[in-house]
Amino acid sequence: MTLSIVPIEGIGEIRPGDELAVLIADAARAQGTPLNDADCLVVTQKIVSKAEDRLVPLDPDDLDARRALVESESVRVVRRRGDLIISETRHGFVCANAGIDLSNVERGWAALLPVDSDRSAKHVRDALRAREHVEVAVIVSDTFGRPWRRGLTDVAIGVSGIAAVVDLRDTTDALGRVLQVTEVAVADEIASAAELVMGKATHVPAAIVRGVDPTWLREGSVRELIRPTNEDLFR
Amino acid sequence: MTLSIVPIEGIGEIRPGDELAVLIADAARAQGTPLNDADCLVVTQKIVSKAEDRLVPLDPDDLDARRALVESESVRVVRRRGDLIISETRHGFVCANAGIDLSNVERGWAALLPVDSDRSAKHVRDALRAREHVEVAVIVSDTFGRPWRRGLTDVAIGVSGIAAVVDLRDTTDALGRVLQVTEVAVADEIASAAELVMGKATHVPAAIVRGVDPTWLREGSVRELIRPTNEDLFR
Repeated sequence: MTLSIVPIEGIGEIRPGDELAVLIADAARAQGTPLNDADCLVVTQKIVSKAEDRLVPLDPDDLDARRALVESESVRVVRRRGDLIISETRHGFVCANAGIDLSNVERGWAALLPVDSDRSAKHVRDALRAREHVEVAVIVSDTFGRPWRRGLTDVAIGVSGIAAVVDLRDTTDALGRVLQVTEVAVADEIASAAELVMGKATHVPAAIVRGVDPTWLREGSVRELIRPTNEDLFR
Repeated sequence: MTLSIVPIEGIGEIRPGDELAVLIADAARAQGTPLNDADCLVVTQKIVSKAEDRLVPLDPDDLDARRALVESESVRVVRRRGDLIISETRHGFVCANAGIDLSNVERGWAALLPVDSDRSAKHVRDALRAREHVEVAVIVSDTFGRPWRRGLTDVAIGVSGIAAVVDLRDTTDALGRVLQVTEVAVADEIASAAELVMGKATHVPAAIVRGVDPTWLREGSVRELIRPTNEDLFR
């Protein structure tokens, strides 16, 4: 089945208290691609954090204040080099600067990660069901770096109505043998796919991913993606 | 612009010496979605390794032989736990078991990574141009794990005719300010997007990604994705 990834343009600047579901559904309708049942809607962390008023004042030139903010949003520093801090957030994400973002935010402000991005995703999903009568999955995405490989990719930091990890253990491969462990991080792959139509500077903070495997559309949580520390060789 | 991701079915089992370009182009045509100029074709490592006869005999129950093979395909072991070896391959990839694969390969055989996956991608691309008169980008994908996050995602291990990393430094964000470093690993994101229509056990070893940003269609190399050891905090 073909997958389509449709950028949603014309959403405009998001302000604290905005109801993302309404703004996104209106923008999707206005461009002729209304949300459908079984779509997966990917929404960037940035507009979720803005709508939820996760903005805090921060002088971007005050490195001490910046470091203090990163540390206050972290439960553990994993690596530090110069101004760069790789830390674990209270959600269990390991990322640069505790996911705090200064780009696409007004100067003098920083956007913190949502308190609970699964809840943020569920809020958008519930509002779309209540107001637009459409049953979609929602993924909140963010842009993370990773060890060993250059370049950032978008990953899922919250999901609702979709599995984060799909477990293919116990299925058979094309030659009829039982596969070894194959757990696929489909929510991360969907977030990455959506990023391809968003760019970083183009006012496209949401995208529709249409045609995902319907068996993935179940209750999920981003916690499926958090590798427990005792399984992790790099913490 | 909408991105479409089209699985290519009916490619069949690949044998050493097969010309992938022809088999893939025929299968795409047969299902009514022929390759077009400016498409990005994603091909899994597995069929590239088979076509290039990167198969070696290996008794899957002989753990010593397996470990020796992994070590011979590695330039450095990064972590080891039980039977799991995370190592750096001579290409610079850091992955489990040097990328050696036992699934979807006949029992008693293992598939090594291509010697040079950029060259593999270029071979497919050149053959499609020569035989099918179509100018496409090609990405060879593989399935890797990563630290901190559960679940595997597909990444690029070779590219031809497309950038691996797109550098958004020097562009401005939506509020008109110059963005900080934003290098996006578009080849990895495209590989992940393609994986969403492939599954792991469904005989779909290739997909067409249609609608990628035309500015990405330039000469590229997977070396853009290899983080130099001196920049890497986790080796």
